[in-house]
Amino acid sequence: MSTHTHDSIRAVQWTGTHLSLLDQRLLPHESVYLETDRAAAAADAIRDMVVRGAPAIGVTAAYAVVLAARRAWSEDGQDWRAAMAADLKALADSRPTAVNLFWALERMGQVMAGLPDGQDPEPALLVEAERIHQEDVDGNRHMGDLGAALLQDGRDVLTHCNTGSLATGGYGTALGVIRSAYAQGRVKHVYADETRPWLQGARLTAWELVQDGIPVSLMCEGAAASLMREGRVGWVIVGSDRIAANGDAANKIGTYGLAVLARHHGVKFMVVAPTTTIDMNAPSGAEIPIEERGQEEVLELAGRRVAAPGAAAWNPAFDVTPAGLIDAIVTERGVVEQPNAQKMKALFAAD
Amino acid sequence: MSTHTHDSIRAVQWTGTHLSLLDQRLLPHESVYLETDRAAAAADAIRDMVVRGAPAIGVTAAYAVVLAARRAWSEDGQDWRAAMAADLKALADSRPTAVNLFWALERMGQVMAGLPDGQDPEPALLVEAERIHQEDVDGNRHMGDLGAALLQDGRDVLTHCNTGSLATGGYGTALGVIRSAYAQGRVKHVYADETRPWLQGARLTAWELVQDGIPVSLMCEGAAASLMREGRVGWVIVGSDRIAANGDAANKIGTYGLAVLARHHGVKFMVVAPTTTIDMNAPSGAEIPIEERGQEEVLELAGRRVAAPGAAAWNPAFDVTPAGLIDAIVTERGVVEQPNAQKMKALFAAD
Repeated sequence: MSTHTHDSIRAVQWTGTHLSLLDQRLLPHESVYLETDRAAAAADAIRDMVVRGAPAIGVTAAYAVVLAARRAWSEDGQDWRAAMAADLKALADSRPTAVNLFWALERMGQVMAGLPDGQDPEPALLVEAERIHQEDVDGNRHMGDLGAALLQDGRDVLTHCNTGSLATGGYGTALGVIRSAYAQGRVKHVYADETRPWLQGARLTAWELVQDGIPVSLMCEGAAASLMREGRVGWVIVGSDRIAANGDAANKIGTYGLAVLARHHGVKFMVVAPTTTIDMNAPSGAEIPIEERGQEEVLELAGRRVAAPGAAAWNPAFDVTPAGLIDAIVTERGVVEQPNAQKMKALFAAD
Repeated sequence: MSTHTHDSIRAVQWTGTHLSLLDQRLLPHESVYLETDRAAAAADAIRDMVVRGAPAIGVTAAYAVVLAARRAWSEDGQDWRAAMAADLKALADSRPTAVNLFWALERMGQVMAGLPDGQDPEPALLVEAERIHQEDVDGNRHMGDLGAALLQDGRDVLTHCNTGSLATGGYGTALGVIRSAYAQGRVKHVYADETRPWLQGARLTAWELVQDGIPVSLMCEGAAASLMREGRVGWVIVGSDRIAANGDAANKIGTYGLAVLARHHGVKFMVVAPTTTIDMNAPSGAEIPIEERGQEEVLELAGRRVAAPGAAAWNPAFDVTPAGLIDAIVTERGVVEQPNAQKMKALFAAD
């Protein structure tokens, strides 16, 4: 077991010269950091879930662009722009659902567009990547306060997957709200879905909450309906990998079912995500690509085949919760209650 | 991997002198049979889930009574009745939710009550236990036909936990309906929840279906809502461990949530169970005791701690689906559609 304290948990870090990623597949047993100066390795790490969580993927991609630029400049000089194309494509192809990835690549691309061919692009890109990272952490803190203010009945909350320091630049989205609410005495105990098949709840969320001294009870996804029927929880609080322009929200598989169950039992449902997660180009959830991952993630357990040979598996990694089942979307720009297209658009009105 | 064929799968068997139980905890990797002539060992096997599934537990308990009687007669002669008390109590205490256990003990008790003190009770009890076993298999076959007749839209079905040959005297309840429906061409492909934390779906249901050549796709419980939203399944088909007098049905944790999701999506919901599963002494599901099992079943994976030390777990083994969410309860005495107390009572009217 790692002896890292919460403040030292950084899923994604810039060492000064390299990108350092905590290999989340090995948690909570081992804390192994993967250090690389190759953008292609970062793309592999995203695809293979060394790093996961939509905001963390975005921050990782931003730093990876810095690495791509460094190599392109050192190998190709003023042709660095063209020399980066393969790396940028590998990053864009790494995972399809989290829009923060594409947002980060776009923002880095805007900086690139403003740079002359004859100038080393690395310094300017590093400034931008570090800004993206810091904005994410700051946004999480602010969302934590906004979301915590909604929790007023003193009941426990249920969360799904991992949305904490490990899934973001730091602090967390849904778990950030839970951290803030616990600090304010609004939440005393958290239920966490184990979150099959990757067990992010059991491996990551429980680990983060224990480190913060927040009481947590794990449960299998199948127990959520009983939990709600017994009146134990007042809110379900989750993150998102992409929110459409109408407020439909894609998130880890199992989220949509929780939203249906919450509505059936009069439990409130909160989605916490920075505005970088919102894709105004997707009119609704129907336009969000849903990643299907390998069957072996379901057919095997701890590296050993558990299902009989001949059995198949269906393994969608995400689902879409319709806006109509969401009571509040909490962003760093404010809270959208009972989201719809008009309210989502208004969130960007100050631009 | 076992080379047993379907016809040779018997979770519970009488060898002529001993009770033989297939250790389902080791499936599908190993087929190990536990042979015993001690009722207390059978009680342990029920508690530790060597054998599971409400009807299989009932059949096991019936044979265990035979073993208890044999020992009592050989050790205490005409005091055999009193000498059986401890064994009978151990059996009754083995698992609380499945009523078939108590029904089997009651039925064996009625035979015991009719026997004189001076007569070896074993032969008469063995006849009764074998009758209970055969009635269960026959009932399953009949339920298979009754349930299959309800499947008329040609869509796939979703099942939960294991309700097949392994969970019963043979053939299966919900899985019996699926077997019959497949044989009749009414179902072409089955979705099976992996069923955390014991993975009965991944380990047992997939194994049985593959052996029968019925195409099966495993999925995590969290994917059920998406499956229904995509319109892939027309029915959810499950078993039950105890059905109350009003039609409320206790079953493996996760079942109730499936029923809520099914209603939300216009998917039909079928419970398949012999009348031995019905507890007319429980007016509603509120009176059904729900077993909570050890936290380690959720905190560990494949024998290794997966959650951080300090994390707790909530591990209810069953939940209750209200009758109002059930479209059909299929028993060997007939089908009860839209169950309620009056219709459940009518099922026993011929008695």
